Amino acid sequence: MVPHLITALTGPINELEQRIIDSMPAIERWFRLEWMEHTPPFYSSVDIRNSGFKLAPVDTNLFPGNWQNLTDQMLPLAVQATMAAIEKICPEARNLLIIPENHNRNPSYLSNLAQLQRIFKMAGLNARLGSISPDIKKPTELKLPNGETVLLEPVLRTKRRIGLKHFDPCTILLNNDLSAGVPGILEELYEQYLLPPLHAGWCTRRKSRHFQSYEDVAKRFGKLLGIDHWLIHPLFAKAEGLDFSEGGNLGNLAEQVDALLTRCVANTRNMASRKALRHRQGRQRYLWHGRDDGARRQRAG
Amino acid sequence: MVPHLITALTGPINELEQRIIDSMPAIERWFRLEWMEHTPPFYSSVDIRNSGFKLAPVDTNLFPGNWQNLTDQMLPLAVQATMAAIEKICPEARNLLIIPENHNRNPSYLSNLAQLQRIFKMAGLNARLGSISPDIKKPTELKLPNGETVLLEPVLRTKRRIGLKHFDPCTILLNNDLSAGVPGILEELYEQYLLPPLHAGWCTRRKSRHFQSYEDVAKRFGKLLGIDHWLIHPLFAKAEGLDFSEGGNLGNLAEQVDALLTRCVANTRNMASRKALRHRQGRQRYLWHGRDDGARRQRAG
Repeated sequence: MVPHLITALTGPINELEQRIIDSMPAIERWFRLEWMEHTPPFYSSVDIRNSGFKLAPVDTNLFPGNWQNLTDQMLPLAVQATMAAIEKICPEARNLLIIPENHNRNPSYLSNLAQLQRIFKMAGLNARLGSISPDIKKPTELKLPNGETVLLEPVLRTKRRIGLKHFDPCTILLNNDLSAGVPGILEELYEQYLLPPLHAGWCTRRKSRHFQSYEDVAKRFGKLLGIDHWLIHPLFAKAEGLDFSEGGNLGNLAEQVDALLTRCVANTRNMASRKALRHRQGRQRYLWHGRDDGARRQRAG
Repeated sequence: MVPHLITALTGPINELEQRIIDSMPAIERWFRLEWMEHTPPFYSSVDIRNSGFKLAPVDTNLFPGNWQNLTDQMLPLAVQATMAAIEKICPEARNLLIIPENHNRNPSYLSNLAQLQRIFKMAGLNARLGSISPDIKKPTELKLPNGETVLLEPVLRTKRRIGLKHFDPCTILLNNDLSAGVPGILEELYEQYLLPPLHAGWCTRRKSRHFQSYEDVAKRFGKLLGIDHWLIHPLFAKAEGLDFSEGGNLGNLAEQVDALLTRCVANTRNMASRKALRHRQGRQRYLWHGRDDGARRQRAG
């Protein structure tokens, strides 16, 4: 299931990768058993950093966009995965409502919405776009760069359900990360499936909490593979009261970064990696930082 | 999910195809609901004839081979489909035993087996090849044209299970169509999943019965699409006592063919198609015939 990246390494396969390839049947079975106990998120995108000897996620988005960037080869896989998910959640589903970001009329975001609609249509659902933005008061057709159009319609709320005019969905898909808080119109919907649930929004979820939970999983997965879980887990720390625009408390950030890189070195078992990391600490590079609530992601230079 | 065929039509889309494309969400939902009531075969291959205005299956194989011909793009789809099927049948599965055809050492058949093993490995199962052929008395390595090898091992039977030396599978996959009858070694296995079940073998299953059942399904599907089910159903007839090698009873076959083509014409609603069919009747072409038990499939000239 690994997409072929243009920048794929052509050198010899390193130890971690070889171990993952060799353990493929065990890994897939592990996931199969995990999914029996835990419902996976309906969709997500994960930013991954791969240093060769270590590979770890640095950001997990539960409201992923950029679906328009799927290659033609990946599209059928997305459709098949959607079918499998819908079959589990609500096999009799007919109508699905996608709730996009408010105010975002960026052509690439609109292409993302059109692609989501396409995927759901191919998976057997009538998918329409219901905006909860105050500026969408009537059905609004917007043009895409490729000449297609998407239709944003205002969401209508009844006592227990939401929908569009003449469109009653059984499932609501959020493509809006709720970073501004949970809008009242989405609360107390007990008759419809809401994916992901409201508490997955950035107004509730914290990255620091996510990485704590991820570390527990990484430890168990590391045991399965017989590796130190640090090889698949990003060390992290939480710095509070920062203000990037005003430069407030950046000294605190610098201290946390230093402490973190020192922990990295201590964690590194083999000498070659330790040397490489010390080199990095000097240059303070490849370190990723972002806001704990997912907003305004930034990269260190 | 439609593979892109090299011989894809480039002309305008005809009415049937357009109706299928337009009904995609309804069709996919229909399948989703059907799979809730009926367990689909674990795997199958279907020969399809497409005349443009009509498209129908002419042969359904429940022990499909030629997996080595999957394109690189289709392989991940096969893996994903396998994962979904295994998750439903036996999520805790670890080992799977593939039972190949006896005596078949054709390089392309062996490549087919290697590909099946690869698909299962990627889907999270240790898959090994267990032969029930009397000529495999010890583990036998056979070379493939690409330099790889496959290992055929003799199947061992205990009172209630089958397996290999040091290999106890929970699932058995038949890639052997049992046209010579059900071997005793596969009977009364109540502790293991046997896919497909023994009564799917050609020693039990009849094509004529298959097409009767398919016609019922085609009628319901035709209603959904608002089309005459004849557009997706092959008219068929059963001729008994034929002997192709000796030419016995071929007169009977010719009569049946003639009667069948007359029925085709009667079924055709629009004039253009009726004309085309009359033309074909004159040449007696495009008619497909085969043995009712699936053996020695042949095509009419």
